[in-house]
Amino acid sequence: MPLTPDQQAEIDSLRSQPQDTLRTVAPGMEKHLYTAHPVLDHGFVRVVDYMGDDAAICQAARVSYGKGTKSVSNDEGLIRYLMRHWHSTPFEMCEVKLHVKLPVFVARQWIRHRTANVNEYSARYSILDREFYIPAPDALAAQSTTNNQGRGAALEGEEADRVLRILQDDAMRCYDNYEAMISDEGQQGLARELARMNLPANIYTQWYWKVDLHNLLHFLRLRADTHAQYEIRVYADAICKITADWVPAAYKAFEDYRMGGATLSARALDCVRRMIQGEEVTQESSGMSKGEWREFKEVIG
Amino acid sequence: MPLTPDQQAEIDSLRSQPQDTLRTVAPGMEKHLYTAHPVLDHGFVRVVDYMGDDAAICQAARVSYGKGTKSVSNDEGLIRYLMRHWHSTPFEMCEVKLHVKLPVFVARQWIRHRTANVNEYSARYSILDREFYIPAPDALAAQSTTNNQGRGAALEGEEADRVLRILQDDAMRCYDNYEAMISDEGQQGLARELARMNLPANIYTQWYWKVDLHNLLHFLRLRADTHAQYEIRVYADAICKITADWVPAAYKAFEDYRMGGATLSARALDCVRRMIQGEEVTQESSGMSKGEWREFKEVIG
Amino acid sequence: MPLTPDQQAEIDSLRSQPQDTLRTVAPGMEKHLYTAHPVLDHGFVRVVDYMGDDAAICQAARVSYGKGTKSVSNDEGLIRYLMRHWHSTPFEMCEVKLHVKLPVFVARQWIRHRTANVNEYSARYSILDREFYIPAPDALAAQSTTNNQGRGAALEGEEADRVLRILQDDAMRCYDNYEAMISDEGQQGLARELARMNLPANIYTQWYWKVDLHNLLHFLRLRADTHAQYEIRVYADAICKITADWVPAAYKAFEDYRMGGATLSARALDCVRRMIQGEEVTQESSGMSKGEWREFKEVIG
Amino acid sequence: MPLTPDQQAEIDSLRSQPQDTLRTVAPGMEKHLYTAHPVLDHGFVRVVDYMGDDAAICQAARVSYGKGTKSVSNDEGLIRYLMRHWHSTPFEMCEVKLHVKLPVFVARQWIRHRTANVNEYSARYSILDREFYIPAPDALAAQSTTNNQGRGAALEGEEADRVLRILQDDAMRCYDNYEAMISDEGQQGLARELARMNLPANIYTQWYWKVDLHNLLHFLRLRADTHAQYEIRVYADAICKITADWVPAAYKAFEDYRMGGATLSARALDCVRRMIQGEEVTQESSGMSKGEWREFKEVIG
Repeated sequence: MPLTPDQQAEIDSLRSQPQDTLRTVAPGMEKHLYTAHPVLDHGFVRVVDYMGDDAAICQAARVSYGKGTKSVSNDEGLIRYLMRHWHSTPFEMCEVKLHVKLPVFVARQWIRHRTANVNEYSARYSILDREFYIPAPDALAAQSTTNNQGRGAALEGEEADRVLRILQDDAMRCYDNYEAMISDEGQQGLARELARMNLPANIYTQWYWKVDLHNLLHFLRLRADTHAQYEIRVYADAICKITADWVPAAYKAFEDYRMGGATLSARALDCVRRMIQGEEVTQESSGMSKGEWREFKEVIG
Repeated sequence: MPLTPDQQAEIDSLRSQPQDTLRTVAPGMEKHLYTAHPVLDHGFVRVVDYMGDDAAICQAARVSYGKGTKSVSNDEGLIRYLMRHWHSTPFEMCEVKLHVKLPVFVARQWIRHRTANVNEYSARYSILDREFYIPAPDALAAQSTTNNQGRGAALEGEEADRVLRILQDDAMRCYDNYEAMISDEGQQGLARELARMNLPANIYTQWYWKVDLHNLLHFLRLRADTHAQYEIRVYADAICKITADWVPAAYKAFEDYRMGGATLSARALDCVRRMIQGEEVTQESSGMSKGEWREFKEVIG
Repeated sequence: MPLTPDQQAEIDSLRSQPQDTLRTVAPGMEKHLYTAHPVLDHGFVRVVDYMGDDAAICQAARVSYGKGTKSVSNDEGLIRYLMRHWHSTPFEMCEVKLHVKLPVFVARQWIRHRTANVNEYSARYSILDREFYIPAPDALAAQSTTNNQGRGAALEGEEADRVLRILQDDAMRCYDNYEAMISDEGQQGLARELARMNLPANIYTQWYWKVDLHNLLHFLRLRADTHAQYEIRVYADAICKITADWVPAAYKAFEDYRMGGATLSARALDCVRRMIQGEEVTQESSGMSKGEWREFKEVIG
Repeated sequence: MPLTPDQQAEIDSLRSQPQDTLRTVAPGMEKHLYTAHPVLDHGFVRVVDYMGDDAAICQAARVSYGKGTKSVSNDEGLIRYLMRHWHSTPFEMCEVKLHVKLPVFVARQWIRHRTANVNEYSARYSILDREFYIPAPDALAAQSTTNNQGRGAALEGEEADRVLRILQDDAMRCYDNYEAMISDEGQQGLARELARMNLPANIYTQWYWKVDLHNLLHFLRLRADTHAQYEIRVYADAICKITADWVPAAYKAFEDYRMGGATLSARALDCVRRMIQGEEVTQESSGMSKGEWREFKEVIG
């Protein structure tokens, strides 16, 4: 369970106090506010705040004085146009602030997205909780035999048991020792900023993460992708659902043009043109490498 | 007058429709929402949206589950601490979106602050209005005789009249010709993206500008400074007032530590120590250049 | 002529003094160093400095200890892989610094690319030169009748003459008045920071612009595109040629995957699949809007 | 020893091949190129490439055609002026690329500086080495009793031994298990991207880190500061020495205005003025909190 009763009470109290505002309100997002969506075994994603909605994208694109929308269908068309033509600045006019609890090794991938604001729980200042990510059986995957940075089928039987035991035992022992080292009972107690170095990368951390919609969608495109590591993908998937409720038109355009779309190279476009003319194109006649051809075939079906 | 009746009506309509939200509401900011604060002769600053308040800064700094505030006085102390120790990320957790109308030469300085989101009115797509900045008499200043990039006293008499006439005539003539060139009556009509090149830099443009509080304060420190050009300083001053109403504790800390504070060099600190000991320090014995010494004396009084 | 004899002498002197370095040297780029490539009537692009080459991209991708290259063909394959899979960080490991002279209205588009370093010639501090962009006859285009932010055919006859005369006369008059206002002969002289507001947007400015290769390629994709305004496209074209000499493998991959490639939406991919199966797809049966369909047909041929 | 003989041989080979360049060469930096400066027990900092020198800062500030320097003393004065007045863009015109080997918990602090380019060794793709940071006896510090995020005196006797043993044993056991889990002998072998989660935060990683001089100096100000954690400070110290050789004038100005300087609040400046007048100011009469007053006294001496 990711939240203690105290934390849940704090959240419930916030959810029970609607206030008046003159700002744009996105009804689909209000229902997500503060609610902790569970991810992995101890993680979550919570919306702490947001700014803007679909209409705000159009309002900015038009630099308008009022709400910036003539009609919903006009707005949808404009949003699709902006997305198709890579006009990123109107999407930057929406912003979201999330509270995320996530394993450290996921946090290290996540933080590589630089155009965002982050406040992480400080393990120099505070003591980390005894919470570690231990993969569910179907996420305990073998190294891929074809892709150096991917994973294959789930481990089975003996091996799966052995790995789980290792992960659990090492996590517990390291945390026991972490506690023992920082304890000031009968000893000086090691500085927290040093003791944390004994903790494995599956320990949970948490942060506030604030990002604009353009950069959020870029994050989602890379991290909700099937090639992303499963453990970050589930966070991206949870955020996708939230985003779909927040800015439905923008999210739909994103699904069509980014998630469901594909970038074809000049060579690939040439092949497509030839194939439409009825030519039988092979890897050899395509001018592509084997890897490119395989990816091309996946796209073209 | 910066707003047409239509624009004013659109704004009034927005201001008359409060909605329920579960988000943090900053009462001091709600009253500014949409209102156009006039700046210079045709410009303005309008708050279009905002995210967060003083408590949100503390909430992020504590990565807390709830509102993040124990008491207002605790929050003030924490905010002062964060400001004093250059902890910038909690301030990044507040965001504001402004609609600004401003002369092009001011826009060109403003845009140099890169960590912000901008949507500018497109003069490729649309036709600019006939609105030019013409300085008020007391802003019509002579070149400074001591500072290559500053200005001195206001021009007087004849010269002031001559300059005003030039600015007005050139603006009007250039705009007449802009209109004449793009007109499609009895001719093809020059492309707007080309015709705009005939317009002087005192023509007004407008944009949506979105920025986090940390970067906003950095902008204000540089642009509300007495060394900033007057024409951008008046915008910064207007935003200072808005910010003081939005995040009063953060703004107060900003005033104390940034606007009213000063960075002293190692040499300057050494002089201060000697002066406190009663030593009579001169420029010669200070180790500073003349320029540094003059600036030091201004700070030390 | 963009350079004075003094400026040319300074450049020649720099070009005549090769020095020893242990850094990576890109021979194709050395030949461009300092040379001013003319653009438009008074503008130019000059390479002031650069860091890295094709091998440096691979070296960073491999976080290697040595040069990071096993063989040129390996490097090319890796670079194509990185480009195809949107791995941007290795391309960020190359950097270039350009000195660019350009009209102000072009500078205003250019500066919207925020992830770059810029030092612009200060018209608060210095006096601008009397140099204005006046379009060549074939660049003096009419407003497009189909695209609100595009241009159509070149103006002809009378109208072309009239427009040219206007642009020239207004530029000269505004500049004469600029000089008259800042003159301190027999008067105080208006502050430069104010006087510049009288100058039209076709006056030339100049800046140092430093950017990493990833962001440079992004800039080139948008600004060397046929939809970009001609006056910025010619700068992008000049930089494309320089880049092709600097990092030939990266530039080739860029041409294939970005400039010559296209992003197809989920809908568009679906149509492609149906067309390859032999189906006759029309706009109506495509599920696309008219605009999307037209753009799709342009890509598919 | 941080480098294997093979790695050293690669580096030596690079150092033995000077090439001709027309670019600016910084002699003080050439001597650092590729050399691995040891930091902590297994870490290092190596300069992989650089762009610019002191003169390049001035050249950019002046947007000059040639080398941009009249004389060294002029340049020094200009650099001091730019530093004093927070003109950051000319310093952004120098760039450095480092190869750094560092413990993961240090990397996690470091990466918070977002305005930089990073390529980290991928533990999804590759197998990490068995190298862990184990503090030297004098760095094995107790938790500070006065500062929640600081450290006090070194641990002594028994406790120090115990902590060292824990850190070593847990590191070795976790690494043994990491190897056992990814092994494909007689089993499928856990995916590397998962197995890495078992490794404690004192394991070493490495990356290429590229940053401009302005942002580097900002990093150094925060991380070479006495309040920074020792383990990142030693990296910052090593980079300070390199920077002093690379851009001596800029580094000197940085030492005077940033590292050795201090920002005083409005209240603090008021106290300074009163103290110079001979007044005996106490915490009570200062208007400062106890924390502020203590920090103020440290600065004022």
